[in-house]
Amino acid sequence: MKRAVVLLSGGLDSATVLAMAQDRGVECHCLTVSYGQRHHHELECAKRVAEALGAASHREFSIPLNQFGGSALTADIDVPKDSLAEGIPVTYVPARNTVMLSVALAYAEVTGSTEIHIGVNAVDYSGYPDCRPEFVEAFEKLAQIATKAGVEGTEMTIHAPLIHLTKVQIIEEGLKRGVEYSLTSSCYDPLPSGHGCGHCDSCLIRGAAFAELGLRDPALAPEPEA
Amino acid sequence: MKRAVVLLSGGLDSATVLAMAQDRGVECHCLTVSYGQRHHHELECAKRVAEALGAASHREFSIPLNQFGGSALTADIDVPKDSLAEGIPVTYVPARNTVMLSVALAYAEVTGSTEIHIGVNAVDYSGYPDCRPEFVEAFEKLAQIATKAGVEGTEMTIHAPLIHLTKVQIIEEGLKRGVEYSLTSSCYDPLPSGHGCGHCDSCLIRGAAFAELGLRDPALAPEPEA
Repeated sequence: MKRAVVLLSGGLDSATVLAMAQDRGVECHCLTVSYGQRHHHELECAKRVAEALGAASHREFSIPLNQFGGSALTADIDVPKDSLAEGIPVTYVPARNTVMLSVALAYAEVTGSTEIHIGVNAVDYSGYPDCRPEFVEAFEKLAQIATKAGVEGTEMTIHAPLIHLTKVQIIEEGLKRGVEYSLTSSCYDPLPSGHGCGHCDSCLIRGAAFAELGLRDPALAPEPEA
Repeated sequence: MKRAVVLLSGGLDSATVLAMAQDRGVECHCLTVSYGQRHHHELECAKRVAEALGAASHREFSIPLNQFGGSALTADIDVPKDSLAEGIPVTYVPARNTVMLSVALAYAEVTGSTEIHIGVNAVDYSGYPDCRPEFVEAFEKLAQIATKAGVEGTEMTIHAPLIHLTKVQIIEEGLKRGVEYSLTSSCYDPLPSGHGCGHCDSCLIRGAAFAELGLRDPALAPEPEA
């Protein structure tokens, strides 16, 4: 049975990636990289998602990228509300996916995994340089060259199954595989209860997608009764 | 003035790299990545080397790769003594240089640096996949694609000035730039005093190179008086 490292953030996208990987019949070792993000609630969600979807293992790895600052997600910069940003957003974390894939690569070598799965998406996050197909391809080339496994002839592949999907399509992929999206959190600035704020870029994007499917985002707080 | 991130381990090679970068007139921001190595003494050495060579800044960044194990340098596997290994050595740390360059890339973005300097060497460490020129090239391609600076048109370059030099040549480059090699430590298993053990792969390689230059490795303990 092939082994895979699945980068699991606790958000909607990576939960869907895990469900898709499980579907392919690979043994999934989930890795949640905590990089000092303000939305710590996601880390708890990752644990619950890994359990609910029956992953082989789950572990957390902490890299204090917030030491460096430089992003609204890790430093004291306001998260923009109620407006989708143009260009590279302030929520971009310098080299975040490069660092996360590198750590996943180290973990892949240690666990004997030959696949790394990541939920990057080029449609809704076109502003992030490290969410583009050319980034994933460049990292796959690097992974082959950088590792003992690669040098010894094992193919090391990077899977980004969501890269060309819209948020609606991602949710559909997850729903047909039984992902409980109420367990996930994608919010950049969640409420004390852990529910999504409903106003940051991330909440706006997923909220609109659920709405298009005639659903309410299950990660939002329940609506007050009339 | 161009800015550069210099990966400084506290060892002989990266001290030489820093001296060479300073010589090129770039503003050097040193980054010491502590990845849970057993040779913690190196971290102290890095600080002293950065100071002695007049770097613009120095900081330490901790990534607990030892959580993953998988190497004699970070896990409880014996460091081989008095024999140079064939193939990929047990002291290989999974994806180490990939992780270190990724973190350096994040730091480069935050500090506005457009160069990353690293002391990898393909001559003495031919067994390490991530010390080869093709690895450095693959990472440079990735860096261009992965970053905000790269996407916005800034060239992001990876400098590995030692890659084709022998240890003797590296020491010569350093000596002519005034590197005090007594401040460095490359030992995989240093004595409590911080001096090199004189018997691990790393001590054997540098010891032989100093000997070839008619010198005694200044990082070894003083010889007992007769």
